[in-house]
Amino acid sequence: MTQSVIWSPIPGGITTPSGFQAAGITAGLKASGKPDLSLLLAPKDAVCAGTFTTSVVRAGCVDLCAERLQDASGVVRAVLTNSGQANACTGDRGRVDSVRATQVVGDLLGLSEDQVLICSTGVIGVPIAMDILLPALDPLVTLLSPDGGAAAAQAILTTDLVEKQIAFEAELGGRRVRIGGMAKGSGMIHPDMATMLGYLTCDVAVPASIWQSIVSRAVERSFNAITVDGDTSTNDTFLAFAAGEPLSSDQFDALEHGVTLVAQHLARAIARDGEGATCLIEVQVEGAASEADALCLARTICGSSLVKTAVHGRDPNWGRIVAAAGRAGVDFSADAVALWIGPHQLMSAGQPLSFDRPAASAYLSDRARGRYLVDDTVQIRLTVGGGSGCGIAWGCDLSDQYVRINADYTT
Amino acid sequence: MTQSVIWSPIPGGITTPSGFQAAGITAGLKASGKPDLSLLLAPKDAVCAGTFTTSVVRAGCVDLCAERLQDASGVVRAVLTNSGQANACTGDRGRVDSVRATQVVGDLLGLSEDQVLICSTGVIGVPIAMDILLPALDPLVTLLSPDGGAAAAQAILTTDLVEKQIAFEAELGGRRVRIGGMAKGSGMIHPDMATMLGYLTCDVAVPASIWQSIVSRAVERSFNAITVDGDTSTNDTFLAFAAGEPLSSDQFDALEHGVTLVAQHLARAIARDGEGATCLIEVQVEGAASEADALCLARTICGSSLVKTAVHGRDPNWGRIVAAAGRAGVDFSADAVALWIGPHQLMSAGQPLSFDRPAASAYLSDRARGRYLVDDTVQIRLTVGGGSGCGIAWGCDLSDQYVRINADYTT
Repeated sequence: MTQSVIWSPIPGGITTPSGFQAAGITAGLKASGKPDLSLLLAPKDAVCAGTFTTSVVRAGCVDLCAERLQDASGVVRAVLTNSGQANACTGDRGRVDSVRATQVVGDLLGLSEDQVLICSTGVIGVPIAMDILLPALDPLVTLLSPDGGAAAAQAILTTDLVEKQIAFEAELGGRRVRIGGMAKGSGMIHPDMATMLGYLTCDVAVPASIWQSIVSRAVERSFNAITVDGDTSTNDTFLAFAAGEPLSSDQFDALEHGVTLVAQHLARAIARDGEGATCLIEVQVEGAASEADALCLARTICGSSLVKTAVHGRDPNWGRIVAAAGRAGVDFSADAVALWIGPHQLMSAGQPLSFDRPAASAYLSDRARGRYLVDDTVQIRLTVGGGSGCGIAWGCDLSDQYVRINADYTT
Repeated sequence: MTQSVIWSPIPGGITTPSGFQAAGITAGLKASGKPDLSLLLAPKDAVCAGTFTTSVVRAGCVDLCAERLQDASGVVRAVLTNSGQANACTGDRGRVDSVRATQVVGDLLGLSEDQVLICSTGVIGVPIAMDILLPALDPLVTLLSPDGGAAAAQAILTTDLVEKQIAFEAELGGRRVRIGGMAKGSGMIHPDMATMLGYLTCDVAVPASIWQSIVSRAVERSFNAITVDGDTSTNDTFLAFAAGEPLSSDQFDALEHGVTLVAQHLARAIARDGEGATCLIEVQVEGAASEADALCLARTICGSSLVKTAVHGRDPNWGRIVAAAGRAGVDFSADAVALWIGPHQLMSAGQPLSFDRPAASAYLSDRARGRYLVDDTVQIRLTVGGGSGCGIAWGCDLSDQYVRINADYTT
């Protein structure tokens, strides 16, 4: 990693890197009348990398994306996103409709259909409303613009409370490089790409195989390290485009750092926007035998309903945290456990310490006062031994509001 | 399995099998003033089998139980249960206090301390209030009685809404055999023995190693097949005693069937009593490659927060069920999936069918009207292929009430 490179957040999103265009419109795919169709267009010679849901049951559009990325060796130019219908479990029709939509977009853009991808999110089992989608593609393409990032970020949302976009820039090898991103997701978020759509753009050229490696590692440390409710989805997709002047190979580590920052920002934004959540929970695990062990412990704690409800109740309940760690399937010595919530140390050598309970509870309460404060992050730090493995995961608290949202959101 | 043996439920519980005595009292260990201390005494020559939490972080009393069962080759006579303090993460003191309590009980009963076990449940990290517990042991022992089962079943509860006890009887080899049981658990219930205490008694003698095998298999198909919120506990323990005239080996299969029935009844009662739950969810999976695959699929569906909230919302949301199956880590063909909720078939060959949505929703609503109706069980049946593997798991719906209970229950 080139330590001298500093990535700074800047205003913007998916179209902030030069050469990218996007658009987002309300086609009428959603009953709510909210924006529901977006398009992202990468410059000529862009390469695209992707990671997809590991679910056995995945939507036809995900299969299509994966196949086209494979066949095209990453040479893909555009991605259409419909946030009205998930188009999963729709059999042959799901596939046919996805192909048809990319054909029309390809024709409008002067691209082959193989250069166009499609993502869908929404209710599972419902086919795309093609009679609404197809006529909307021409106006959508017409709106493509370097200023279209915010509209695109809006149009990919479903139950999200806020749009999620970010851009970073840095000087790499004497050049200004920008990375932008947008994402969708607020429920069903779990390690291994839960119901989540993410898009990243970068204005340098990188060989396709290297770009895929960079993106895969960044996803492992971001989108695969968040959990909202333990469920994963049929449609999860992360796509990342790189296009521009070639970057010299000695800058690849610095670029990966920037890609990871953007991916982590988007992942945290998704975890923070967990349905009904009032805070972000960040769990750091240290001293594990390996990074994989540490990540597993951190994810298990983040995913524990009892930990999540305790945080929601502003209860510094170290017992639930340790119990979650204990059943993660990772071996460690219970006698070595030390635990902090924020600045408050609650355990040492496997046993509870006397601590200022009102102050620890206040630490939790302070982070729940408002959403999107700088300080809405509840930090939990767990040491499990003397190993070198460390890892970090993010989640959110579990509220009664979560249940109401999910009990009412219909198939 | 001897098909001619029919196990019938009868009134009673842990002391219904002959020779067993129990007692339950309010010692004052709980702030609530509810019963909090129980004792179970098995007849001379009883054998005891146990299964324990797989958590890395387990209470000192669990270690003690496991060691004594191992050392005594199952020859254990009594078990004390304190439902005031979990006594987990209490270090050396947790162990010392557990040993001391069993010494005092042993002295009072004329047994060696090695023949006495202790279970604890309650808030993690809090040591047993020994100044309250020790003076209560003499009156507790005095109350031991063949009629003490119901009092004991009450005294092991924490947040449970109802006590859980059951007895079955059958004719085995010309003799009447009875099996009784009691259990505690209403939250944190998950495969692999979540925060759950269970006790089973049987009035025939079985060799210790065979008894342990019978009990382990029964637990796998009962307590390890329930899930409430995905968490597991530091203190989970299941103990089963057998004592009486020897049973001939050709009756062991029939006995195992009865033990499994009692264990499944108790496990379902725990799942049904999930914090804030309004119904029992029973998921049957068929056509998997193996029983293990089928159980994994069934448990994953039962444990999905999205499935649980959908059932709570009376939404026949097949999409969430299939999505949960898809991410269970079990390989199957999505095209082979068929799904039923009660009598309503929702999917065939991997695709949704048109079905009577109001009727399916009414099926769910009907099962939520009251607790402990005969018909409070929501049945979900999933076929995933042509394999011979089948399995069943139980859980409950997820309500906003669950969140409120768990946000308020303090360390």
